[in-house]
Amino acid sequence: MHKIALIGAGRIGRIHARNAALHPRLALAAIVDPVEGAAQALASEWDSRVATLEQALADPEVAGVIIASSTDTHLDYSLRAAAAGKAIFCEKPIDQDLARARAAHRELSGARMLLAFNRRFDPNFQALKARLDGGSVGVLESLQITSNDPSPPPPAYVAVSGGLFKDMAIHDFDMARWLLGEEPVEVFASGSCLVDPEIGRLGDVDTARTLLRTASGKLCVISNSRRSGFGYDQRIEAYASAGMVRADNVVESTVQVWGEAGAAADRFQNFFLDRYAEAYRREMDHFADILDGAAPSVGYADGFAALALAEAAAESVRSGKVVAP
Amino acid sequence: MHKIALIGAGRIGRIHARNAALHPRLALAAIVDPVEGAAQALASEWDSRVATLEQALADPEVAGVIIASSTDTHLDYSLRAAAAGKAIFCEKPIDQDLARARAAHRELSGARMLLAFNRRFDPNFQALKARLDGGSVGVLESLQITSNDPSPPPPAYVAVSGGLFKDMAIHDFDMARWLLGEEPVEVFASGSCLVDPEIGRLGDVDTARTLLRTASGKLCVISNSRRSGFGYDQRIEAYASAGMVRADNVVESTVQVWGEAGAAADRFQNFFLDRYAEAYRREMDHFADILDGAAPSVGYADGFAALALAEAAAESVRSGKVVAP
Amino acid sequence: MHKIALIGAGRIGRIHARNAALHPRLALAAIVDPVEGAAQALASEWDSRVATLEQALADPEVAGVIIASSTDTHLDYSLRAAAAGKAIFCEKPIDQDLARARAAHRELSGARMLLAFNRRFDPNFQALKARLDGGSVGVLESLQITSNDPSPPPPAYVAVSGGLFKDMAIHDFDMARWLLGEEPVEVFASGSCLVDPEIGRLGDVDTARTLLRTASGKLCVISNSRRSGFGYDQRIEAYASAGMVRADNVVESTVQVWGEAGAAADRFQNFFLDRYAEAYRREMDHFADILDGAAPSVGYADGFAALALAEAAAESVRSGKVVAP
Amino acid sequence: MHKIALIGAGRIGRIHARNAALHPRLALAAIVDPVEGAAQALASEWDSRVATLEQALADPEVAGVIIASSTDTHLDYSLRAAAAGKAIFCEKPIDQDLARARAAHRELSGARMLLAFNRRFDPNFQALKARLDGGSVGVLESLQITSNDPSPPPPAYVAVSGGLFKDMAIHDFDMARWLLGEEPVEVFASGSCLVDPEIGRLGDVDTARTLLRTASGKLCVISNSRRSGFGYDQRIEAYASAGMVRADNVVESTVQVWGEAGAAADRFQNFFLDRYAEAYRREMDHFADILDGAAPSVGYADGFAALALAEAAAESVRSGKVVAP
Repeated sequence: MHKIALIGAGRIGRIHARNAALHPRLALAAIVDPVEGAAQALASEWDSRVATLEQALADPEVAGVIIASSTDTHLDYSLRAAAAGKAIFCEKPIDQDLARARAAHRELSGARMLLAFNRRFDPNFQALKARLDGGSVGVLESLQITSNDPSPPPPAYVAVSGGLFKDMAIHDFDMARWLLGEEPVEVFASGSCLVDPEIGRLGDVDTARTLLRTASGKLCVISNSRRSGFGYDQRIEAYASAGMVRADNVVESTVQVWGEAGAAADRFQNFFLDRYAEAYRREMDHFADILDGAAPSVGYADGFAALALAEAAAESVRSGKVVAP
Repeated sequence: MHKIALIGAGRIGRIHARNAALHPRLALAAIVDPVEGAAQALASEWDSRVATLEQALADPEVAGVIIASSTDTHLDYSLRAAAAGKAIFCEKPIDQDLARARAAHRELSGARMLLAFNRRFDPNFQALKARLDGGSVGVLESLQITSNDPSPPPPAYVAVSGGLFKDMAIHDFDMARWLLGEEPVEVFASGSCLVDPEIGRLGDVDTARTLLRTASGKLCVISNSRRSGFGYDQRIEAYASAGMVRADNVVESTVQVWGEAGAAADRFQNFFLDRYAEAYRREMDHFADILDGAAPSVGYADGFAALALAEAAAESVRSGKVVAP
Repeated sequence: MHKIALIGAGRIGRIHARNAALHPRLALAAIVDPVEGAAQALASEWDSRVATLEQALADPEVAGVIIASSTDTHLDYSLRAAAAGKAIFCEKPIDQDLARARAAHRELSGARMLLAFNRRFDPNFQALKARLDGGSVGVLESLQITSNDPSPPPPAYVAVSGGLFKDMAIHDFDMARWLLGEEPVEVFASGSCLVDPEIGRLGDVDTARTLLRTASGKLCVISNSRRSGFGYDQRIEAYASAGMVRADNVVESTVQVWGEAGAAADRFQNFFLDRYAEAYRREMDHFADILDGAAPSVGYADGFAALALAEAAAESVRSGKVVAP
Repeated sequence: MHKIALIGAGRIGRIHARNAALHPRLALAAIVDPVEGAAQALASEWDSRVATLEQALADPEVAGVIIASSTDTHLDYSLRAAAAGKAIFCEKPIDQDLARARAAHRELSGARMLLAFNRRFDPNFQALKARLDGGSVGVLESLQITSNDPSPPPPAYVAVSGGLFKDMAIHDFDMARWLLGEEPVEVFASGSCLVDPEIGRLGDVDTARTLLRTASGKLCVISNSRRSGFGYDQRIEAYASAGMVRADNVVESTVQVWGEAGAAADRFQNFFLDRYAEAYRREMDHFADILDGAAPSVGYADGFAALALAEAAAESVRSGKVVAP
């Protein structure tokens, strides 16, 4: 059993707390949160205890930390955890500032750090990647990544989110890199404000298309909207030389109703915590593997590269030009 | 070019007229119908001429006749056409009376007669049979045939229809025989009147399940309703030793609408003349082949056997017992 | 927290142990199994302790028992648990002998007893029932229940299983009663041995179709095979006066591969413990509700009625006649 | 009956000949083709006669002409037909040279000219547009148009085709304009040669993504490949403020095979003449309407605008910049 500490008892922290507490190789030894009531409630629920960050990092029995606190703390806490010799499970994005993220290269690129791009652990996307890697569809040529939220976040969130590309599309940039197997060398993006004018007033876009191109000419389109109108829309199409592999949305049940208007399927899952529940479990399982000695499958370098693509896309929207990330 | 005559200028007759007239190897030489206006209109539309049955059968240039008149004339006209040496394309059912149908055995079992079970010519069901015959799913073990009409016919039609089994399920009995490749030796059926009480007052049922069993133990369920509530419902599932093949309903378009309630497909085709438009064309093509010398793929013996199964099913509903057809 | 004891540490017992141990309102206080090693291993896994049946039933702190032992003990242990005043969670079937099951009526019909027909707790079938109960598709008229196992059990299991109807179709009889909302009054079944001749030598069938009819004329077909050839096949179609509701199989992922041969979906889940994982969790949740005072939604009377239908179906196969359950 | 002449007896000309000959309001009065054998064969098939272009245009009984000859003749023949007062059905593209096409503005923008963008007449895309126009999914915000050919054309064709954008994507540019209801004001495209290096040597691309943006900020992505590896791939997704409408590929039959590997659908239609057979019929029907006096729903201006977008896309690939069409 590896003892771990959780930093951040908010929505995503509570998911990780549950998965860590139920994991056969992990023990949730400490909960850290500036809001003491939140930390205490979560500690009670999972038979853990409240600690300060300093206590958690100083405890030699704590082998790893989960950083699920606010985005502006990700980089700082990661550096402190790395300095303390802990394994790190850090929520995305690694930071909103590319220069700051780059500055941490020396300390973090060698750390035992899992950058929590949860979609890499989704069974559907893993199955898609397995088909591609299996080779039966030939060589990957292009990708279509569709990623639309059910409904827009409140303006207060948008204001501090870092913008659509760093906050939302960053997952898609990571998926693109993961599947393309090559770095994009050109980024072009076009964005609009079609969903909520308030988002535009805050200087952000709510609808975007981003076109990535790799050195060998592979093409990838990322489609984003802050509001789908039909649930959480997370799909990928991978076009290869001998066929196409795709992963579709997940429905709430297999039920269909057939009526005069035709066959109607059940709703798509509407909430990312439902859609990716299994991904979060598998992600935690990988963290246990890392604590057992495995190399992280996704880490600092991936967090940095996705952030660089997000910044390039935002710059492309501003300039109307192709940007090299 | 084979000259043919059409007997019956009603709804289904008009379909056959068009397919015959447009067929590169057929010429629609005569239209016969007691309602002269109907015959005349159809003859004008396809540049044909009106004739009496006697004239058509006496014309040595007429090589074949299409019998699309009322059910009670099918057998008589077939016998007369056979006596005149014509090839015969006869609408189903061959008759409503099993004894009468049996009595025609000597004259019709050797005739060049196409019994018009159109579903055998449907591209979807043909594709299903091709998969079964191809052998990749192993040996057929059981069948599920689902056949529901969009909405019930008017009571006046029900009264003369011969009942659900002879009028509607007769197609399904033929499909069962075609796909099973073996004769059913036991028939059990249960029927209810759930759709329209008037149908019950006429002594018929509007909802039924029929279970067929062959000598080797293959099982087949036929599900019928006079009203689906969701369009024309024509599906088959064929369970074999190494998998299952099925044919689904046909939609009006490939359009889907995705909304808060989920993904909704377009309506199923609602009308048998749409659903089986291509089947009617292929059926006519087979008639041209017969006129060229091919053996009919479905004929008198099939019409008789399906009728025997229909009669057995009706008898089973009455007696509550298993019936040998 | 309600303390409960688990009787039976076999395959299904281990599932229930996990769900009970992780349930926020249940504590797994004791494990009972004649094979001490099995009991001990499971007790260690979930921080419980080993006990004898007598100890568990005598412990006043134990509020409920889960009976997951062999079928021949279900009824006896249920009676003993009821006598001890415990709430009961009993695996299906309640017994293989209808007379024995009937004899327990006085003691068990009033017990706080959950008969573990897990499919009632499957999210897909619950969603189907919710659509029916919601009324938007009108009044239920007929049902098609398809229930095929991926591959046949070993003959040794078949020999003691009670036969296809009591062992396998009993779930489907329960689903039929649950959805029809009316008791079947006529049962007709036809069975064959098409999958494994050894099953036939043991006096059982491996392929069957059962036709149920209620007093009001509702019809239900149950299709069973011991081997589908394409995974665990668990589907329901419910035909109502204004449409149809159906629940389909569950796929392993949403991935499709599109190639020259067309679009291929991922495999269906192949194992009942995967397919019904969530059903087992919800079932345990309902047991917690019962311990909190709720009335069981499915109990002794349901177990008895399903067994009576299974016996009627087996009798119909033997006699070739309609049987009243 | 309107008498019409067909110019061009090649592959697409033969399709139009059939549809015109079978149309109840059209008579195929003349066939024009420099290859006399081709013209003669088609005239025989449909009971028409061979003529020169001059004869056809001079014949006062000929009310309309179908221009299905090689691309470099489209504009010239259209001008001559317009001068002769004929209604025009002209195959796409209107020309490969934007300046030449622009120069015909005065003569053709007022002509009774149907520019044969057949996809506007496809029942699936028409159903999609009807859903959008019906308003139930709200206001259109973005489009995804996927258009991949089954396999690449021979290099000799590529060399004279005008390039991927003018030859193949031109249909998609027209679909974008038709559905967006607004003119794109910015075009960005990225293209690669991934399918056949010979295409690259000819200066063309075989894989492309094009991003269009309208003045109001609507976004449209067009995905093209000269080779799908899985049949003719023609799909549209239209994202609107209250949902999404999409049109999928067409399968050869509704048959599915379920096996150990999962459910496999039948192949997609592999050939554009099959996929768009009904579109070609409806297109001809619209030409009959035009001859009856209706205004063309798609004409010279649309052909010109699509060509301008194609040229802008090609220029964007060359320059790496956003281009205004």
